[in-house]
Amino acid sequence: MLEDKSPQRTSLGQLGEFQLIEHLTKHFQINQPSTQFGIGDDAAVLDFGTQKTVISTDLLIEGVHFDLAYMPLKHLGYKAVAVNVSDICAMNATPTQITVSIAVSNRFPLEALEELYAGITLASKTFKVDVVGGDTTSSQKGLILSITAIGTAKEEDIVYRNGAKPNDLIVVTGDIGSAYMGLQVLEREKQVFLVNPNNQPDLEPYTYLVERQLKPEARTDIKELLEKLEVKPTSMIDISDGLSSELLHICKASNVGCDLYEEKLPVDPQFISTCEEFNIDGTTLAINGGEDYELLFTINLEDFDKIKGNPNFTVIGHIIPKENGCHLVTRAHTKIPLKARGWNALEE
Amino acid sequence: MLEDKSPQRTSLGQLGEFQLIEHLTKHFQINQPSTQFGIGDDAAVLDFGTQKTVISTDLLIEGVHFDLAYMPLKHLGYKAVAVNVSDICAMNATPTQITVSIAVSNRFPLEALEELYAGITLASKTFKVDVVGGDTTSSQKGLILSITAIGTAKEEDIVYRNGAKPNDLIVVTGDIGSAYMGLQVLEREKQVFLVNPNNQPDLEPYTYLVERQLKPEARTDIKELLEKLEVKPTSMIDISDGLSSELLHICKASNVGCDLYEEKLPVDPQFISTCEEFNIDGTTLAINGGEDYELLFTINLEDFDKIKGNPNFTVIGHIIPKENGCHLVTRAHTKIPLKARGWNALEE
Repeated sequence: MLEDKSPQRTSLGQLGEFQLIEHLTKHFQINQPSTQFGIGDDAAVLDFGTQKTVISTDLLIEGVHFDLAYMPLKHLGYKAVAVNVSDICAMNATPTQITVSIAVSNRFPLEALEELYAGITLASKTFKVDVVGGDTTSSQKGLILSITAIGTAKEEDIVYRNGAKPNDLIVVTGDIGSAYMGLQVLEREKQVFLVNPNNQPDLEPYTYLVERQLKPEARTDIKELLEKLEVKPTSMIDISDGLSSELLHICKASNVGCDLYEEKLPVDPQFISTCEEFNIDGTTLAINGGEDYELLFTINLEDFDKIKGNPNFTVIGHIIPKENGCHLVTRAHTKIPLKARGWNALEE
Repeated sequence: MLEDKSPQRTSLGQLGEFQLIEHLTKHFQINQPSTQFGIGDDAAVLDFGTQKTVISTDLLIEGVHFDLAYMPLKHLGYKAVAVNVSDICAMNATPTQITVSIAVSNRFPLEALEELYAGITLASKTFKVDVVGGDTTSSQKGLILSITAIGTAKEEDIVYRNGAKPNDLIVVTGDIGSAYMGLQVLEREKQVFLVNPNNQPDLEPYTYLVERQLKPEARTDIKELLEKLEVKPTSMIDISDGLSSELLHICKASNVGCDLYEEKLPVDPQFISTCEEFNIDGTTLAINGGEDYELLFTINLEDFDKIKGNPNFTVIGHIIPKENGCHLVTRAHTKIPLKARGWNALEE
């Protein structure tokens, strides 16, 4: 799990900037029909015909968004792409292209960047997006990644955050909390490693949690699935900061309130057992832990029968008038005001 | 010219991430008809009808691309936008939207970010682009800016780097070298300041040079101008790294050679006098100094009459077969091989 200590190290200083870009980008293939011209000019050229273009961007900083002590570079590359592609999915659009900019300090050898790009390449294949541009530069400290994702959708398919109405059902895909619990496991192993570097971590009981943290998948499958079921969400967002924080975004944008049911929260058995082992309250983690990159959306009550019993979806609550507020309804039927305690980038 | 020492400092930690984004982005206006939905959801939604979409991205790191000791934050914001808009112009496309991501360490107060965003807002007005998204996060060290620019063009109008043919004329807009010379002036003043902080710099004799460095303009006017003159360039690039380096990019992509004439290089009188004062060879600076953000393009020889005498354009050489190489023809009529000595991001 730890950083590659490969003996082969090619210094970036030996290569020029343009040689480096050529070397790193030569494996990117063009598969999207809308990619008219990719890397190699001042800008990429995209052709979306009469479709709408959807665009989203993210900036990832070493030490803030990731820790290379337990995040292998290949996983980092994969995750950085998944996170951005997820934003496009959250608009109910189809991701089509990405641009990738990186800044690295000289402590990184070429082989490290190759690992990073291997992850980016794998993700671009998995999520069927073309890499069409970017920027490669140096940093004074650490690794910085900036990814912009582009997608396309018919006007009538696009789902914003602001369409939730009272009586709508709140639905989440997959399960939640595991990515954050995976981070707790990795943090613990890092502390053990710092005390005794010869100790080999046994991550076997936490495979699912660790994979959810290191290799999250963007839900590129949901748009098609909802289309087949003939359900169009009234509002949608992806879970990057935590369920509670994202649900409050939907409520604020839609000018509504919500009741979220503790007993409905979909969590993995491994998540439950690890919460017990770590002596942490599972519900707190499930609603505040981020980085699951599942989709959170609302649907018209009439559409309930269409998604009922589908293993991809769990109804976790419903939308109510704004004046009734946003609450978590506990198993004991008490109502607790929902708070956005998700990861806050600028807290000290 | 130095960093603002304003007594009013609001710590970023007092604001949450979302409050900060709201505060900084509230002044962005939507003016482009293609901007269907801007900031406030997982992604922006753009509508380009049947036009092609052009996209470009840049990552700017404090200490690598800019030095806040002489680059005021407002200028930095302006320049970061100009640099990206320039890439869209270099495709002969019309810039329409940008996304802006920033990462800052806690040493920056809110007022500093407001200055930065004031520059971004001014540039977005000047270049008529809508700010449609971005990311705001923290960094462990310094300021990081990532900007993605989007533009639009009819398919038949787009100009790539790879269309230059032997006998084509090489043309440059405006004048070159001044931005780099401006940097030399600012570097000298910084050294003086470090020795004696009470010394007030007199930048009056260098106004043009300093402005070229701190507030470069993207040539958004050239597309329309060339259209009026009924000239379509055969290849085009913008000058960010230096004329020599950019011309070699065109030659490599187009599989041709070039002769560049020293006596034709358009430079400003202030550039010439300051080169003399600094005892630097003006030609070396004019062809290797970057950041002028002028456009470099090639045109068919038959189009020469259409641009002849136009103060915006200078013919500086011509394209020749690849086997004849790429040379600078000096005033003494000797041929020197052109080398890309432009700013190299990864050199130590």
